[in-house]
Amino acid sequence: VTSEFELIEAIRARFADRGGRVVIGSGDDAAVIRSDGVTVTSVDGFVEGVHFRLATTSMRDLGHKCLAGAASDIAAMGAEPGEAYFVIGLPGHLAPEEVIDFAEGAEALAADLGFVVCGGDLSRSHELVVSVTATGHARDEHELVTRGGARRGDRIGVTGALGGAGAGLLLLDRKLGGLDAETGEALIARQLRPRPRIEAGQALARAGVHAMIDVSDGIASDGARLSEQSGVLIEIELAKLPVDEGVAAVAEQVGIDPVEVAAGAGEDYELLFAVADEAAPGAEAAADQAGTSVTWIGRAREGSGVRLLAEDGTERSIAGWDHLAFRSAPPAPA
Amino acid sequence: VTSEFELIEAIRARFADRGGRVVIGSGDDAAVIRSDGVTVTSVDGFVEGVHFRLATTSMRDLGHKCLAGAASDIAAMGAEPGEAYFVIGLPGHLAPEEVIDFAEGAEALAADLGFVVCGGDLSRSHELVVSVTATGHARDEHELVTRGGARRGDRIGVTGALGGAGAGLLLLDRKLGGLDAETGEALIARQLRPRPRIEAGQALARAGVHAMIDVSDGIASDGARLSEQSGVLIEIELAKLPVDEGVAAVAEQVGIDPVEVAAGAGEDYELLFAVADEAAPGAEAAADQAGTSVTWIGRAREGSGVRLLAEDGTERSIAGWDHLAFRSAPPAPA
Repeated sequence: VTSEFELIEAIRARFADRGGRVVIGSGDDAAVIRSDGVTVTSVDGFVEGVHFRLATTSMRDLGHKCLAGAASDIAAMGAEPGEAYFVIGLPGHLAPEEVIDFAEGAEALAADLGFVVCGGDLSRSHELVVSVTATGHARDEHELVTRGGARRGDRIGVTGALGGAGAGLLLLDRKLGGLDAETGEALIARQLRPRPRIEAGQALARAGVHAMIDVSDGIASDGARLSEQSGVLIEIELAKLPVDEGVAAVAEQVGIDPVEVAAGAGEDYELLFAVADEAAPGAEAAADQAGTSVTWIGRAREGSGVRLLAEDGTERSIAGWDHLAFRSAPPAPA
Repeated sequence: VTSEFELIEAIRARFADRGGRVVIGSGDDAAVIRSDGVTVTSVDGFVEGVHFRLATTSMRDLGHKCLAGAASDIAAMGAEPGEAYFVIGLPGHLAPEEVIDFAEGAEALAADLGFVVCGGDLSRSHELVVSVTATGHARDEHELVTRGGARRGDRIGVTGALGGAGAGLLLLDRKLGGLDAETGEALIARQLRPRPRIEAGQALARAGVHAMIDVSDGIASDGARLSEQSGVLIEIELAKLPVDEGVAAVAEQVGIDPVEVAAGAGEDYELLFAVADEAAPGAEAAADQAGTSVTWIGRAREGSGVRLLAEDGTERSIAGWDHLAFRSAPPAPA
């Protein structure tokens, strides 16, 4: 592999064409995809030192993780998996073989979830940056679930368990003990190889949930987005959060309340949704069929914003993840 | 503007929803676009120091230029303009207001061409990186033109003029003289504010051209792609290249043959295409209607690769633009 063309050919060879929708895949000016209804599209950026560190993330895991982040938005719409496209800015210290590892990690997850990688762009850069475009499909928009449909009185549910990805990041960043190897590995896997809830997203959409979002920046942040788009207050009882196994043991060692990890750290890529009481049993059954569980953690109420309630009924504040970190260095006001 | 949310809101406010296809625009997990045929998608990355320098490119021009690069691929398919999505990695030295300038530049071109900006992602990075996803639409794939349809005997045509963007880059990089202000400004505009040939792409597709590609990396490189996908030799007579006004004057001052700028520099975003002799007058008329011209510069012949012929009939070699620049520092072979 000694040229851009050769590297691109080597990468392209890693991606299988699985899709009946794909008329023309990678290699022309643009991919051509047959669509017979609506296409949903989400884009996501991943920057070395901000979203991942090469010291703790293999290139193969990075390929997985970047696709997972974009695919999770498709899951949150309840859409059928579609296509994925990668733009990679590649620093000179990475060998072509390492980019191929990235491609293999992305392709393995794409095959698992049902996405087809149909294109990309590669260029030089000083730091490793990855941008992923993921698409999904539906017959029409009524099959999809937006962030905007939560109604007063709806139950707020979340799939799976929270805090695992955050605890996994702590384990990668520090030499911690007091945890059996299996639990530690599972937490690290949640950080490095998250699996988006594609099947659960489609199942919950069919079960009639009113609004849905994936938990990428923490339930506090993502709950605020649900609230804003739906025009309701999202009230969450922190004691009810399904905290992942081992999160408490990790959090304790670094002096953080496990609830802060579960509600604030993000990257769990679970689904947070609102559903009417009468449809709640159906949503539980749908999630169960899709291989996960639902925990009821709160209610949509009249008002705005997110209210995080401690066990004694007092309100707590837990910050979500602001990718620009303007909080720490605010620019001059506009 | 003091947070990621506020900045995103300020950017979102710059983008108008012009599209009858847009069911849900920016602000949900994913945009939702109605499609009734095929969707074409292209992604393109732009890295500070590789594709642009902030010393010579305003943020407004950069917004224009990044969208232009991705939109040009849609033009080369002959598709109807669709949607655009931006992923931006933002270094700390850029103020939120400068990102808004970027958005305004992108939106102005989007409005001009008929694209709708429907989403994006913003994060911190050390250098400015931009990734653009552009889509286009067609009723079915037979309305589109790939890189793969050129046939032996086809005429090779190119729209507009070549070398202007390369000469503009030379003018930005060096203090050169010997050029009237108007010509210099026009060359710089070709570099900073290229206008993709959207209308010409659709018109040439309707006129029945066999294969088409946009000239982004220089006619030598892009001709090679056409050759490879079509399984023909692309023969180009360098003396026939439509060299842009002022290119010769600029090239002379830096000791480069103007033909090398026209054939090698790229970023002109003209359309290079193959068409049967009998459809050539129709292609000329179509391009004329779409506001540009066609110059016939060569033939598709039996064989492979690109053959660049000098006026005396000898073959010349002109390198295209390799974004990874592996040539200068080849990695160990795989």
